[in-house]
Amino acid sequence: MNNYNNKPILRVIFLGGVGEIGKNMTALEFGEDILVIDCGSTFPGGDMPGVDLVIPDPAYLIENRDKVRGIVLTHGHEDHIGGLPYILKDINVPVYGTELTIAILEAKLREAKVNAELNVIKPQAVVPFGKNFKVEFVNVSHSIAGSCALAIQTPLGLIFHTGDFKVDYTPVQGNIIDLSRIAELGKKEVLLLLAESTNIERPGFTLSETAVGKSINGILQENTESRIFVTTFASNIHRLQQLVDLAAKYKRKVVFAGRSMLNIVDCAMRIGELKIPSDNLVEVDDVGSYADKELMIITTGSQGEPMSALTRIANDESKIKLHYNDLVIISASPIPGNERMIYSVINNLYRHGAKVIYESLAEVHASGHACREELKLIHSLIKPKFFIPVHGEHRHQKKHADLAIQMGMRPSNIIIADIGDVVEVGPKTFALGEKVHSGALLVDGLGVGEVGSLVLRDRKHLAQEGAVVAAVCVDKNKGEVVGIEIASRGFAYTADTDELLGSAKEIIRDIFAGMDVKAQEDWNNAKAAMRRELKNFIFRNTKRNPMIISQVVEI
Amino acid sequence: MNNYNNKPILRVIFLGGVGEIGKNMTALEFGEDILVIDCGSTFPGGDMPGVDLVIPDPAYLIENRDKVRGIVLTHGHEDHIGGLPYILKDINVPVYGTELTIAILEAKLREAKVNAELNVIKPQAVVPFGKNFKVEFVNVSHSIAGSCALAIQTPLGLIFHTGDFKVDYTPVQGNIIDLSRIAELGKKEVLLLLAESTNIERPGFTLSETAVGKSINGILQENTESRIFVTTFASNIHRLQQLVDLAAKYKRKVVFAGRSMLNIVDCAMRIGELKIPSDNLVEVDDVGSYADKELMIITTGSQGEPMSALTRIANDESKIKLHYNDLVIISASPIPGNERMIYSVINNLYRHGAKVIYESLAEVHASGHACREELKLIHSLIKPKFFIPVHGEHRHQKKHADLAIQMGMRPSNIIIADIGDVVEVGPKTFALGEKVHSGALLVDGLGVGEVGSLVLRDRKHLAQEGAVVAAVCVDKNKGEVVGIEIASRGFAYTADTDELLGSAKEIIRDIFAGMDVKAQEDWNNAKAAMRRELKNFIFRNTKRNPMIISQVVEI
Repeated sequence: MNNYNNKPILRVIFLGGVGEIGKNMTALEFGEDILVIDCGSTFPGGDMPGVDLVIPDPAYLIENRDKVRGIVLTHGHEDHIGGLPYILKDINVPVYGTELTIAILEAKLREAKVNAELNVIKPQAVVPFGKNFKVEFVNVSHSIAGSCALAIQTPLGLIFHTGDFKVDYTPVQGNIIDLSRIAELGKKEVLLLLAESTNIERPGFTLSETAVGKSINGILQENTESRIFVTTFASNIHRLQQLVDLAAKYKRKVVFAGRSMLNIVDCAMRIGELKIPSDNLVEVDDVGSYADKELMIITTGSQGEPMSALTRIANDESKIKLHYNDLVIISASPIPGNERMIYSVINNLYRHGAKVIYESLAEVHASGHACREELKLIHSLIKPKFFIPVHGEHRHQKKHADLAIQMGMRPSNIIIADIGDVVEVGPKTFALGEKVHSGALLVDGLGVGEVGSLVLRDRKHLAQEGAVVAAVCVDKNKGEVVGIEIASRGFAYTADTDELLGSAKEIIRDIFAGMDVKAQEDWNNAKAAMRRELKNFIFRNTKRNPMIISQVVEI
Repeated sequence: MNNYNNKPILRVIFLGGVGEIGKNMTALEFGEDILVIDCGSTFPGGDMPGVDLVIPDPAYLIENRDKVRGIVLTHGHEDHIGGLPYILKDINVPVYGTELTIAILEAKLREAKVNAELNVIKPQAVVPFGKNFKVEFVNVSHSIAGSCALAIQTPLGLIFHTGDFKVDYTPVQGNIIDLSRIAELGKKEVLLLLAESTNIERPGFTLSETAVGKSINGILQENTESRIFVTTFASNIHRLQQLVDLAAKYKRKVVFAGRSMLNIVDCAMRIGELKIPSDNLVEVDDVGSYADKELMIITTGSQGEPMSALTRIANDESKIKLHYNDLVIISASPIPGNERMIYSVINNLYRHGAKVIYESLAEVHASGHACREELKLIHSLIKPKFFIPVHGEHRHQKKHADLAIQMGMRPSNIIIADIGDVVEVGPKTFALGEKVHSGALLVDGLGVGEVGSLVLRDRKHLAQEGAVVAAVCVDKNKGEVVGIEIASRGFAYTADTDELLGSAKEIIRDIFAGMDVKAQEDWNNAKAAMRRELKNFIFRNTKRNPMIISQVVEI
């Protein structure tokens, strides 16, 4: 019998995936075993300038490295697998996922030169982890192929984790979400449900993926003479398959543009998840050899990412030049925070004469996440004893909890967790335990975790106000300033500024002139005074607060 | 007879208000007269770090200062009046607007210590500008009281400019939009229509402002015991009036929180536009003396602005502490780009136990801008010869042009303008002329226009990568480095970094060691080499590119 403080306690540890969107990572701990579910990454917000990527802080797992039995992946989206190249360096345990998930991960690990034991499983497979966990992969629909929910047997009972899912009764290919198995699991007693909350604010059901195909078919039918561009998430293989099939139907060649699009298409074709007759494919360089009506160009950039193919096309920075006969379909919706970028791309597409069709105007995108009625279906099938809403911002988790209460659950059987929280589940108990160390680890260049709050604070200061940099050379023995250079960056470049910085030199000379060269204390005072007086002088004259970087070279 | 190149030409000059949202400013020019319509400001985007405010570049108006006869204001929103404190310093001409518009402007000018001739007009008033323009102010509905469209008589015919407007048949107070006058103007020949395009993508009609009052009444009725918070745009006086009236109905005292809220309430009460019995008002400091059910707290922060009252309350940084019995109504919708900020505030409100009601869940906000059917109404009443869609991003203008074509206009009679464009209107001609100088002028601290593209480029570099700063003291005569200090900011603070910067000192010494002290060229080469070698050395070791700021002090 495994135990924790002499009582059998199952710990659900949230290292990500709650209280925010992005970088999912949850750990289950019982006795000597830890099982990790997903390990995502996210892009930094505007408050993290210069950061390339944000991953969950794995400190707790590193401390307990000996207990970690493996990592199971629900699907291959970045917010579920993007942290692995960094975290597997410290915790090299076996990883399990479906074929596409592992193929995408493999390419990432190769690029990062990380070796790991990767295991491809099929839905319905059951994999044991240590003595305490057995994981069954359950097929679900989502906006990437090979997505799974997890049914996890533990010594205290069954945990059901939905992963990211939707209920699509008419998927593009593959089996539909395995509702029979989910119903069967629900007939046994389910101890704990973890269910995603992304679309809890949307009533009804999500649009089926095949409905998107129908809408785009209609657009192609009405625009037979136009050159067609479509942008979508590269990982949405079923969307790509529909686009490719439609292109064949209308005798259009397919061009893929954008690095991540080419990478994922390569992965998906290699494992047979995406099927394209090779003579239907054309390289970007050969676009000029085809008439407008013979082309469908599928590009990255559905979020208006600055370096993406579509953004470069819209800004006239690409080999592909827009003209009046172009029709662009934005087959995606903006992730909150990306609105300005994507609208700016749409404006530029219009400026160059293209027509643009986007989601608010037509059904050219379907969400991959369950809406309210789909979530109710899962709750009614699983009928869990305890419930933790996951995968959402706090407001989504709160509304998901409200939905469970409406459906009859007792509020005391529901916990809304935040990052770092540990939910302790006993046979009859359900409560928050002591928090573990958690947070965001920032990746910048080669460094992981080198950029911390102090560095970010400085970067924000520099971004807001720029810097005034003073190099002062002082003769130690005479206590005399022998040379000063002052410059600014990101502050202002005007004649007034030159004059201002010139006057600042006088202030510095005066400060050092009055000090006692023998007293170390006076040296320190002088340096501090220099920074303070420069700061005040500049603020008085400009009402601005650049960062003052002063260096005293003593000779 | 006025003329331009010997032909009578009316020039419509777009210095703002097209191709983007924000900082409206349009000029009409005929012969020796220029009339300016609105002069707004906007907040900087993420690509303009540290900038306080963005205003239209008035260079063209300053060059032609002698011709500028006056500025007419359609209403008192920041994007229509916020640039005046800066622009009136250079072009001090009379300004005309309705009572609330001028009251708000007056407060702004007082704060900026700018004197100007301000003229309060009433709707239906007609004001002449020079020999060539007569402006009639026409009452419209919008999300701020005292909004007007403009009917402008010119030697070539009538121009109708809608300003920002909606059709509200049941406004909170004041007259409804003057459709009879608009119809009457349309019966004459209207040469040119300029109409706003903000909500062109929304079908149907906007919600009436009184419908918002009804929704909030329902919420108050159902939550009689809760403490109520409402956040909305401070300038939406009619929304405030409804809230204040509802507070009275449910025997709640009103507390206003946030600087801009207090400023606008003060303006609006002074001119009688907002009516509140003074014993219904309570100061923030006295909130503790009242029971929850006796309070309605109206705050700034509807866009999640970091320093606003609601954000500080949500972050537990305010005197007002949240508890389980609080209900917060977000009576506004996010302006694109603000989604992350406002959702973060909503998440924190939930975290502190409050309930939150926002627009996607209930009709607690109404837009101030006309939807498609309202725009169609205006087009069908005005029946203009020429049309320029304004006040929108390029995509909105394009769709507004499509709507006009659907309604029967000839495409050649419509022009989609961008900032800097000049539309030349003749008796029978309508075409783009030569562009004028235009753009964004950045306000940062006391400086207007000091922060330009070079400064912004440096700020972005500093924000992304931080800086490495080297101060090198060199003995000119010996060509010898006598001292070096190297530091970094916003780069990384680790032991590795210290070591890295230590090694960098050696690189610098080597560079100066080899040079010929007599040759000025060698000096310059050494300085350039230092920057280049430092940059390469750091990139090789970290894959990062901090800004290198090197200063050589020669003694």
